[in-house]
Amino acid sequence: MTYTEQLANIQKHTGREFKSTSSPFMRWLNPVVVSAEKGKLVFEYTIRHEMANSMGILHGGVIAAIIDDTVAATVSTFNEEYFYVTISNTIDYFHQAKLYDVVRAETSIVKKGKQLVNIECKLWNEKKTHLIAKGYSKLLKTDKQKTNL
Amino acid sequence: MTYTEQLANIQKHTGREFKSTSSPFMRWLNPVVVSAEKGKLVFEYTIRHEMANSMGILHGGVIAAIIDDTVAATVSTFNEEYFYVTISNTIDYFHQAKLYDVVRAETSIVKKGKQLVNIECKLWNEKKTHLIAKGYSKLLKTDKQKTNL
Amino acid sequence: MTYTEQLANIQKHTGREFKSTSSPFMRWLNPVVVSAEKGKLVFEYTIRHEMANSMGILHGGVIAAIIDDTVAATVSTFNEEYFYVTISNTIDYFHQAKLYDVVRAETSIVKKGKQLVNIECKLWNEKKTHLIAKGYSKLLKTDKQKTNL
Amino acid sequence: MTYTEQLANIQKHTGREFKSTSSPFMRWLNPVVVSAEKGKLVFEYTIRHEMANSMGILHGGVIAAIIDDTVAATVSTFNEEYFYVTISNTIDYFHQAKLYDVVRAETSIVKKGKQLVNIECKLWNEKKTHLIAKGYSKLLKTDKQKTNL
Repeated sequence: MTYTEQLANIQKHTGREFKSTSSPFMRWLNPVVVSAEKGKLVFEYTIRHEMANSMGILHGGVIAAIIDDTVAATVSTFNEEYFYVTISNTIDYFHQAKLYDVVRAETSIVKKGKQLVNIECKLWNEKKTHLIAKGYSKLLKTDKQKTNL
Repeated sequence: MTYTEQLANIQKHTGREFKSTSSPFMRWLNPVVVSAEKGKLVFEYTIRHEMANSMGILHGGVIAAIIDDTVAATVSTFNEEYFYVTISNTIDYFHQAKLYDVVRAETSIVKKGKQLVNIECKLWNEKKTHLIAKGYSKLLKTDKQKTNL
Repeated sequence: MTYTEQLANIQKHTGREFKSTSSPFMRWLNPVVVSAEKGKLVFEYTIRHEMANSMGILHGGVIAAIIDDTVAATVSTFNEEYFYVTISNTIDYFHQAKLYDVVRAETSIVKKGKQLVNIECKLWNEKKTHLIAKGYSKLLKTDKQKTNL
Repeated sequence: MTYTEQLANIQKHTGREFKSTSSPFMRWLNPVVVSAEKGKLVFEYTIRHEMANSMGILHGGVIAAIIDDTVAATVSTFNEEYFYVTISNTIDYFHQAKLYDVVRAETSIVKKGKQLVNIECKLWNEKKTHLIAKGYSKLLKTDKQKTNL
């Protein structure tokens, strides 16, 4: 795959697990691609036992990880030649999610500048009646070129 | 275990993996307890393949998860009767960590008020020559009592 | 004024400067009330010389101050009996505003829980074509009662 | 003044108000320079009536503004040729400060990379017995050159 095919690669997994990713931790999170367009992703995740904390609910660290991962995937949908690095994530926690629940991450671009991208990610319960968490991330364009991915 | 034994329970794992935790995701992260005192933990983690991103380095989401988890464990060292919930995490990313590296999380209390706790977590490489990331978290005391843990 | 009249007090300044506030710094910022409802304020500010930085543009510190002040005013629109304290503000900066420009702050509630309120404030240029900055604030209810304001 | 003289310009105001700044809002804040070195400033401020909120204490927006301003001044101490812009400020509030109090802002560099600078600012009461607030800021180097300042 070349960098110009990144969005198309996510889109062709619509409705199913994104198994072809080269990121081992993304495979561990195991998103199902609900929809994908430039700057906007909807991924769903099923909460497995190993994602729980000692209360038996979705661990806040896994929430942070889901947000970080969907945000980075969102930047890849611009099919740009240069890598971005995440410089910060802020996660606000609002609601719990239970074991075996499906949660739904939706990203959107707040601002895409020349060097910086600000992205928001809302994590909802499956029916979108409760906002579980909200993340804000900043990514910075590097001068490192993507060759084959 | 009762809530008054939380710090002692972490301390008795000093120098080894904290296998006895009831948190499945903490077991997945698999910290080694380096030291533990009231309000101050040092945990080490070995970066496994499934913690990597597509660049083959430690995934930013796992960094966020490590910070979230050590911070929550730090609050437990106060042996308090009531549960705390994390209301926010902010993670600033500075350096990369490679596969099979050992990383070292060190927490410290910024401010512990009546209701709120502000905690910082620095994530270092093993020799503490590079700061990989820095997290700031806020936790709020709930009115939910701990019974047996 | 009693605490039950806080929203009405803002509303009766609609279309003009909020001169009757008892906050000296709010008077210095000198908002014009565009609209006010429960949990949602629109205030406009004219950028004066003393609000500028050395580049002759709106100082980032004044942007932060505008966001902090509108957010606190927004919490007052719930007409609640107890004081809230701001526990944190995060401000992301996107665009500049020039001297004598009018800027428009719009607040909205992200989540209002039993103890915590999460509020967002977007600061726009007058025509709302550019987002100047975005703030996220957390406020915590105290047990201190309001008597007369 | 040229950009190579920025640190020296702050240092020569040690022990007195920084009246010569070209920033009108910095003059309004009116810091006294306690000490200045590369990447590290200590400024003191006296809380005036117009800096207060409706409770008669230091307004949280002025706290945010002090932090934003000292942080930007800290970046100038590197005497670099290119302008930086602040991309974000996060302020955590811990204690109140009263009218006519002196507060003390101390900055330190968390990480200075090629493009990004992360700076911390602690705001203390005069005797440094209470931390009033803590700020974390990110600034990004632009490609805009400083000519005369």
